Amino acid sequence: MSAGGTDVDEPIEVPRADPSRISEMIDAVAEIGGDPVGGISRLAYTPEERKTHSLVSGWLRDLGLEVWEDPVGNTLAKRAGADPSLPAIAFGSHLDSVPHGGRFDGIAGVVGMAELMRLLAEAEAETIHPILGVAFASEEGARFGEPCIGSKFVAGSLKEADLTRIRDAGGMALGEAMASAGLSPIRLAEARWTTRDVALFLELHVEQGGILEAEGRQIGLVDVVSGSTRIRLVLRGRANHSGATPMSARTDAFVGAAELAVAVEKLTSDPSFRGLRATVGRVDIWPNSMTTIPGRVTMTVDIRDTDSDRQRGAAAQVVERARWICERRGLALASAVIADTSPTVLAMWVRERLKQACESLRLTYRFMTSGASHDSQVVSRLVPAGMVFVPSKGGLSHVPDEWSSATDIARGVDVLFASLLDFDRFLLEVESRSDARPAG
Amino acid sequence: MSAGGTDVDEPIEVPRADPSRISEMIDAVAEIGGDPVGGISRLAYTPEERKTHSLVSGWLRDLGLEVWEDPVGNTLAKRAGADPSLPAIAFGSHLDSVPHGGRFDGIAGVVGMAELMRLLAEAEAETIHPILGVAFASEEGARFGEPCIGSKFVAGSLKEADLTRIRDAGGMALGEAMASAGLSPIRLAEARWTTRDVALFLELHVEQGGILEAEGRQIGLVDVVSGSTRIRLVLRGRANHSGATPMSARTDAFVGAAELAVAVEKLTSDPSFRGLRATVGRVDIWPNSMTTIPGRVTMTVDIRDTDSDRQRGAAAQVVERARWICERRGLALASAVIADTSPTVLAMWVRERLKQACESLRLTYRFMTSGASHDSQVVSRLVPAGMVFVPSKGGLSHVPDEWSSATDIARGVDVLFASLLDFDRFLLEVESRSDARPAG
Repeated sequence: MSAGGTDVDEPIEVPRADPSRISEMIDAVAEIGGDPVGGISRLAYTPEERKTHSLVSGWLRDLGLEVWEDPVGNTLAKRAGADPSLPAIAFGSHLDSVPHGGRFDGIAGVVGMAELMRLLAEAEAETIHPILGVAFASEEGARFGEPCIGSKFVAGSLKEADLTRIRDAGGMALGEAMASAGLSPIRLAEARWTTRDVALFLELHVEQGGILEAEGRQIGLVDVVSGSTRIRLVLRGRANHSGATPMSARTDAFVGAAELAVAVEKLTSDPSFRGLRATVGRVDIWPNSMTTIPGRVTMTVDIRDTDSDRQRGAAAQVVERARWICERRGLALASAVIADTSPTVLAMWVRERLKQACESLRLTYRFMTSGASHDSQVVSRLVPAGMVFVPSKGGLSHVPDEWSSATDIARGVDVLFASLLDFDRFLLEVESRSDARPAG
Repeated sequence: MSAGGTDVDEPIEVPRADPSRISEMIDAVAEIGGDPVGGISRLAYTPEERKTHSLVSGWLRDLGLEVWEDPVGNTLAKRAGADPSLPAIAFGSHLDSVPHGGRFDGIAGVVGMAELMRLLAEAEAETIHPILGVAFASEEGARFGEPCIGSKFVAGSLKEADLTRIRDAGGMALGEAMASAGLSPIRLAEARWTTRDVALFLELHVEQGGILEAEGRQIGLVDVVSGSTRIRLVLRGRANHSGATPMSARTDAFVGAAELAVAVEKLTSDPSFRGLRATVGRVDIWPNSMTTIPGRVTMTVDIRDTDSDRQRGAAAQVVERARWICERRGLALASAVIADTSPTVLAMWVRERLKQACESLRLTYRFMTSGASHDSQVVSRLVPAGMVFVPSKGGLSHVPDEWSSATDIARGVDVLFASLLDFDRFLLEVESRSDARPAG
């Protein structure tokens, strides 16, 4: 019953990514920063993060690539193209994790980049544009509040003043942390990319949600990436003895914080905030003793939306409610926006060409938004960017149980490889047309 | 205008406690266990607690007293009486602190005991009963949940099975902690007191509330000591990414805990629970990262009242509300009562004689309840006990700013000294009457 001869619809002939190699690389990275309490804790600009950069650098050097670390800790690997004057097509993601996080967030994209570089070498592929592999430093905002630090330096949206302004929970300044990780934050200008360096950025990432798995699709193509506003609130009351202090004489910082957390959740059920995600993820109580009324609470609220007005409007309402609660309870309140990133609409033409690659590979796909922030969002302020998602098991992310299969990740690499060859040709056409225009 | 000659109402002639000596001793104890983050952290059965016991032992030995440590870490000092067959009149308090606690809670009573022993030596006082000074171990429940551990061993209300049952937050068993502090928990039976050893226990303590200061009174005489029920709750949801997880797909353990904390506070405003104190003092969140939905929260609720039914009734309601909140939110709940101490009515005749001592010394006083738990509460299950409070500045306790003046503490020691001589005579009368009765 099967038709003889060559099927005209047969997928285009490209080498395929190897799931077992991907799996080995994922395992090797996961050996660095394992937390005895659970999961992976490989925070921004820690020795653990730096070790994974060295590991990946080694793999890329073994492929004969030109590999270097920029002054802010991003690892870059360049494969020459036929025309060295052209800007590169860049791929990559990040290697750091949240505390007690998983093995795939960011890592899948970097490992995928290394596998793609291997495929190019194996296929002895000749591209016109140089190919640039990137492992960004410090994408997770868990340590400094600020996400996407490595890519923000690259895109020029973090500056010298931010080296002292941005601090971790222990009060260490970003610049100090970078210097003690052996980096040269003072030379941050050298890390910047221009449109002469890079023409396009693509990022392979795990979905971190459960939609692809639920729908049984292999690939997600991202159109909009959520923005996030992160607020740190400090509520100060008066610590005192839990037995000797009558209820009427208390200013309990924790009950105030608890009331706020409930109010934040309630805000998200307001129809005007549908789709918003608001999370109280970190809460530190002082003195945190069973028999002492909490005197101080520091808490973070992470507010995300694909719509910037809704995102910032909700953030303003959270602070307003915190003020009202603290005023009524006699608590002192300090609040600060510690990070604020706008939602990003990725280039639609990039998404369309990624879709063609999926179709040519006969992979099932869908367009989708990203609830999480990504380096591609930052880089897309500079050059067009696209994102390829692969399924996450159970929709879990930022937790030890985070999981994506090596087969699924390999499919994502296949999409990147197919589209790389396509973008290499397509960008040349665009660049030729643009060169043809008169200057000025 | 002043009357000449001897005033017949002149206070009885007794040596007076020396505020400057008291101040020096308080300072010396406060040098052990200072916490870099604030206050004093000298938790139960830690090297810091043991060091203060050694320090106080030295002072007591220097006074020529017989000093020893019992197998559970209480320090005892005996001054012989004229009749060695009589039970002792005992005084004392404890030397441990809560995390980030103050310099006076417990310490004032132990330092007062040492000063009283010095006064007895200086006055070459001859008592009929032996006098027993006590520094109890591990009164604060902050480490093990269980308060008054040293006095509970003495009174026989903690047994061998409790050595493995009671554990700290790190999972270390009480017996293990005691052994690693160089003690011999297995010989706990030797620490027990009987009514042949002790006839009466008196405790000097800082008020830990603001009533004496507000009313301008010098001495508080305690009639009822609050009981406490302590509950540990573990709420388990699912940790996940704060951006990628829609509100509808969350089981956020912290919002559940927050809702419960607000409900606990609300419970105390119910007229049927007037006077109750309920405190969520310790909250540990996992993974406690800004960009991860909290997957697990461990929290303690400390419930205190002078009425035992109200205390236990409230504890039951807290667990009931926790169940209801967790069921509605899809959270798993585990709850355990980790300590439960009944309210105690101290012997009224002891209070009345302490009152006479105050009057003879022309000190202003009032009767009052104690919101906090105390060793005297435990010892009073065995022999009559009395408590003398001195003012606390601003009503603050269990915090670094806890303060009582050395002059106020010295007044408390004066009350103890005057009443000691009184009790010495009075108890003999009681004992004689009881001896005169035919056996059986």
